[in-house]
Amino acid sequence: MAEASQVRLGILGCANIARKVSRAIALAPNATISAVGSRTIEKATAFAKENGCPSNTKLYGSYEAVLDDPEIDAVYVPLPTSLHLKWAVLAAQKKKHVLLEKPVALNVKELDAILEACELNGVQYMDATMWMHHPRTVKMKEFLSDSHRFGQLKSVHSTFAYLGDQEFLKNDIRVKADLDALGVLGDAGWYSIRAILWTTDYELSKTVTALPDPELNEAGVILSCGASLSWKDGRVATFYCSFLANMAMDIVANGSTGNLRVHDFVIPFQENVAPFYTVENSRFGELSTAIHPAPSEQKVSTDLPQEALMIKEFSNLVGGIKAQRSKPEKKWPTISRKTQLVVDAVKASIEWHALCPHVHVVC
Amino acid sequence: MAEASQVRLGILGCANIARKVSRAIALAPNATISAVGSRTIEKATAFAKENGCPSNTKLYGSYEAVLDDPEIDAVYVPLPTSLHLKWAVLAAQKKKHVLLEKPVALNVKELDAILEACELNGVQYMDATMWMHHPRTVKMKEFLSDSHRFGQLKSVHSTFAYLGDQEFLKNDIRVKADLDALGVLGDAGWYSIRAILWTTDYELSKTVTALPDPELNEAGVILSCGASLSWKDGRVATFYCSFLANMAMDIVANGSTGNLRVHDFVIPFQENVAPFYTVENSRFGELSTAIHPAPSEQKVSTDLPQEALMIKEFSNLVGGIKAQRSKPEKKWPTISRKTQLVVDAVKASIEWHALCPHVHVVC
Repeated sequence: MAEASQVRLGILGCANIARKVSRAIALAPNATISAVGSRTIEKATAFAKENGCPSNTKLYGSYEAVLDDPEIDAVYVPLPTSLHLKWAVLAAQKKKHVLLEKPVALNVKELDAILEACELNGVQYMDATMWMHHPRTVKMKEFLSDSHRFGQLKSVHSTFAYLGDQEFLKNDIRVKADLDALGVLGDAGWYSIRAILWTTDYELSKTVTALPDPELNEAGVILSCGASLSWKDGRVATFYCSFLANMAMDIVANGSTGNLRVHDFVIPFQENVAPFYTVENSRFGELSTAIHPAPSEQKVSTDLPQEALMIKEFSNLVGGIKAQRSKPEKKWPTISRKTQLVVDAVKASIEWHALCPHVHVVC
Repeated sequence: MAEASQVRLGILGCANIARKVSRAIALAPNATISAVGSRTIEKATAFAKENGCPSNTKLYGSYEAVLDDPEIDAVYVPLPTSLHLKWAVLAAQKKKHVLLEKPVALNVKELDAILEACELNGVQYMDATMWMHHPRTVKMKEFLSDSHRFGQLKSVHSTFAYLGDQEFLKNDIRVKADLDALGVLGDAGWYSIRAILWTTDYELSKTVTALPDPELNEAGVILSCGASLSWKDGRVATFYCSFLANMAMDIVANGSTGNLRVHDFVIPFQENVAPFYTVENSRFGELSTAIHPAPSEQKVSTDLPQEALMIKEFSNLVGGIKAQRSKPEKKWPTISRKTQLVVDAVKASIEWHALCPHVHVVC
């Protein structure tokens, strides 16, 4: 039974991020790396060796071969975004459950094709947004949902930036128009947009407006940008993402009675314990010479790193479907699609700015 | 000589904030409360008694009487904003140096009249933005100016919010169209705008764009709003201010090599020591499973609260002018005017949104 409960995962492509995820699969109690497929058998072999994959891992010199293997339940797809449509759809058609690296697609039209293929074929879809699976995220959400401690959400700001070095800014797939055309918006912006939607219980905003003057490289790929979002009840959100600034991974959510702050929401500073900061019912002291109380730190421990918890959750869903106990969980495609919709709206707003810098449509 | 070095201050009006400032004057080593003027002598008397003003404080039943007193060097003006133009100009004409509570004017045209009067009459002008005078502000600026530690500014976000109770939202002057017509934008937004300009060395932005859908009260006074600012080199700033959210006083500045965070920039949580947080040269750990280093806390102690340091600095400038050692310091009117310009631009953008919600001008 122990073996039957293991979900057999194949990895499509040997991207750098696949190293982290192969470790996560090894750590997850209910998943096994069963195959690695790359464009050449040599690359697959080298990857398996370097990353300590089990000795019985099947190594393939093509992605198709992984999808054609009847002993593979699901695939993790860390390919460049421009290849997601082809390979995620094909994986679903071959009845493989799909864990798709973000950005999941170049636009929502592509994503809809992927999601439709997954639905038609009864396979689970999940994007690889790891922080969603950290127990800290659950604890933070408990605070945000507490009408006494946090109250109603009023505003939220998120930043995800990291500094790309010369090599990154020249050669990384994230800055290549033919590979990851969304640039920093799809890479880092994805997380901040997800964070904002997470604070609103995934209610889409009424407006999405890019901040003026995003920074682009020579190929027109976005290196830094931001946007504001607004909801009809007065809630507002802003975010900033960049390959040109020092690392920052912030969510600051202001509620009517409390605030939440976190500074490492995408990847915690430490793997086994992650902090966030809350404050409630703040008030001015006598003569407004001080403010009470100061925010307090909440620490959340985890036995498994967030990426292993992601694999565990994905494999748990896949296992349920395999055993015919359950159907695919719709939450994951739903929130992935909403995130993509906002990514697309920011992109459209940026393009509108570029065409017509003095005037732009806000809704 | 000790007595001669004391700047003799008059207070125009017994606003609540004047209680805090009268304590600050008492704490400052080079200033004395010499007069309190209110609309009635009874109110001035009660204020002096409740706030422990020196027994020889002159009490006046009008603002004019303070301005006509030849033994008063300077006035602190905490009147409602709509009265600033009249009384600050008159004070300057009567050769009184002016410490003007913010928001300093209803618009830059009014402020220019005040600044012109101060310049013509050779008196010092300063706005009462207390946090500018905290030693923490100097330390934070040192970090922001350090090209190795912080690098170049890329983005900054500021929030100043506090929750107005039912009484506040009904009766406070800050929500009255005829008293403080700028609402939360002039009150809390002033600080965030100043904070943003402070991070850019007071370089004005190329664009100022209000976030859509500010919250207004029935009289049309702003209760929450925000804006984005952009500079031609790709720098961006956003801010949010509100009377409808729990207290938050944040500056988060992201540079190319470091970040600065502060969560109580307007009024420190504690009066005698104030923290801020910096991090430099952040990097992904092995397999990007962690981030190094975590931000570190910097604490800055102060012997005097920031409002007393403001009085001390103002009185020091006034003392120099009195002794004919120096001329009025132009830094303070200059940064006050720039702050007002951005306030006005946000107001204009909000009004444009209201007129024409689907399209707005960004530069």
